[in-house]
Amino acid sequence: MEQQARGTTIPRPTARRAARPDELVTLKHGAGGVPMRLLIEETLAAGYAEAPMEGVGLDAMDDGAALPLPDGRWLVVTTDSHVVHPIRFPGGDIGRLAVAGTVNDLAMMGATEPLGLTCAVVVEEGFRRTELEAIQLSMLETCREAGTTVITGDTKVMPRGEVDGLILNTAGVAITSRVVIDAGLQPGDRIVVTGTVGDHGISLMARRHELEFDEELLSDVAPINGLVRAALEAGGAGVVALKDPTRGGVASALHEMADKSRVSIVIDEPAVPVRHSVRAAAEMLGLDPFHIANEGKALMGIRPERVEDVLAALRAHPLGRDAAVIGTCAADHPGRVVLDTGLGRRLLTEPVGEPLPRIC
Amino acid sequence: MEQQARGTTIPRPTARRAARPDELVTLKHGAGGVPMRLLIEETLAAGYAEAPMEGVGLDAMDDGAALPLPDGRWLVVTTDSHVVHPIRFPGGDIGRLAVAGTVNDLAMMGATEPLGLTCAVVVEEGFRRTELEAIQLSMLETCREAGTTVITGDTKVMPRGEVDGLILNTAGVAITSRVVIDAGLQPGDRIVVTGTVGDHGISLMARRHELEFDEELLSDVAPINGLVRAALEAGGAGVVALKDPTRGGVASALHEMADKSRVSIVIDEPAVPVRHSVRAAAEMLGLDPFHIANEGKALMGIRPERVEDVLAALRAHPLGRDAAVIGTCAADHPGRVVLDTGLGRRLLTEPVGEPLPRIC
Repeated sequence: MEQQARGTTIPRPTARRAARPDELVTLKHGAGGVPMRLLIEETLAAGYAEAPMEGVGLDAMDDGAALPLPDGRWLVVTTDSHVVHPIRFPGGDIGRLAVAGTVNDLAMMGATEPLGLTCAVVVEEGFRRTELEAIQLSMLETCREAGTTVITGDTKVMPRGEVDGLILNTAGVAITSRVVIDAGLQPGDRIVVTGTVGDHGISLMARRHELEFDEELLSDVAPINGLVRAALEAGGAGVVALKDPTRGGVASALHEMADKSRVSIVIDEPAVPVRHSVRAAAEMLGLDPFHIANEGKALMGIRPERVEDVLAALRAHPLGRDAAVIGTCAADHPGRVVLDTGLGRRLLTEPVGEPLPRIC
Repeated sequence: MEQQARGTTIPRPTARRAARPDELVTLKHGAGGVPMRLLIEETLAAGYAEAPMEGVGLDAMDDGAALPLPDGRWLVVTTDSHVVHPIRFPGGDIGRLAVAGTVNDLAMMGATEPLGLTCAVVVEEGFRRTELEAIQLSMLETCREAGTTVITGDTKVMPRGEVDGLILNTAGVAITSRVVIDAGLQPGDRIVVTGTVGDHGISLMARRHELEFDEELLSDVAPINGLVRAALEAGGAGVVALKDPTRGGVASALHEMADKSRVSIVIDEPAVPVRHSVRAAAEMLGLDPFHIANEGKALMGIRPERVEDVLAALRAHPLGRDAAVIGTCAADHPGRVVLDTGLGRRLLTEPVGEPLPRIC
């Protein structure tokens, strides 16, 4: 049966004209920086802006969408596909990553109580059922941690060799009375990060390169909706921007926030928490921790008068112990992100050509 | 850059103990029949039933989930990944398939006015941007046809050879005042199909085998939320079950409906509309049109006193011209589906071992 079915797959077309390299999708389009944003704006999101919707739609390029409900609240919707390799990594696995990623994207819109998640699995023929069970268990546990559940799903099997292992897509829905967007920053607002940066991406890359350190390098993957809720309760309307620094790292996220709010951001580099082992591994790998994906952190824009309240609330939470104020917004040079090293200032660039494939 | 990034991918583990064949996922687990339902129940959906949710959840194994809203209405959520190969096929492409599939899953819950769709793209390095643009245009056009839009998305790029071309996941959200589930059938209810069966799967398989016919074989892929809305308006509470016969075809869908409602269904085989060319191609391919995926059709369970109204409404719609009453529910042998051929009766079996990979 299997043979017959496999035999029916038609061969891929071979006689197409050679495409210019700039016509092809490359790994840099998946790296979370400028090339990805341009690809999305120019192709995948094109055309939808002609019929603008009420609320936060595709054109906002935010962590998710927000649709107005008749009772004045908002329905928040978000989606992410997860292609991380290997599917188990130090500190987590693809199941935890998928649940946390979607819960966190909802939280970054201000929606910290997810109603439920969808789970769509694309799996390679020959994948082990025990692996599938382990991933499911990890999803279930992470759902419990986040106070949510999987409500519906889909399963597709692809013939051997046509997909590498497993791809997991999750979408999430939540209702919130207040939407927090990326773009709420004003000059004078402070930037807070909820913990150490670079942990997820650097731990994966260190594992791929078999680097070892005294301090074990672990991904920070975790659902942080509870942490964000604590910050929103403490800061109220003083929490004006939320973004999780996933692909492209803190650098990309800060650039998006600065650009959308038309402010500049000055980052006090020594204030940014980076684990010693992450810094060491990043140096050995030639990577910048500011360019690397995090999976359990948030950047927050806070009105100056509320920043101490928010910081105290974050630090009182187990996932926010290393929270720190790392920067300030200014009116000059909108869109620019500057690193103040303590010895001088330089521009913080966005990653453009350093793709780390299948990091999330 | 690309070289460096590609070089960082760790090799797959090789020294694992050999797994027994029954421990592995096979193509039949993706074919929409009994093996897929068992795999989902035993692995992916396991554990969630311990904390049952209000509404229609994962345990219902319906086309989507329904969550109660404070105003008495329901939030319906659904998801599907699309792996169809080739990405363009006679009568459609992966973009149209994704939008129609998700819109139709919402409609099968009674939610015929989708608020919006998510769109998560996983694309192989080297994929053509012009292809991506064509797919996006197809999605946009199908969204317009269905009266909806893409509200948020995600893009991942996988290194060459790690995914074949493109995988498209869409999730959909809608609000409805009445949820129609799979399981509302009673003895005496009539079964209606909204048009010819087998078109999508057979047209793809005929293309793979390069079969040609006088009448062109085309997929039926279309968003049918407008058609379902017309049926619900005409039939009101007399429309008691809705299911779209996708993977596993009419046979799987009828089995699920009969099983969940604890009735048997007797199908009047000559009444089931099948295109001449589909029947001919199915015979040449050794396939049963009743086992084959449709992408623009619905099966409906209708109270007998409303069936003429619903049929008239369906036939007045461009996508329902071939709608027909094809069967009746009975109390004996719950879960059984019987084909009355006009000459005798036989059981309609579910497809188990005839997977058609990447048909949707």
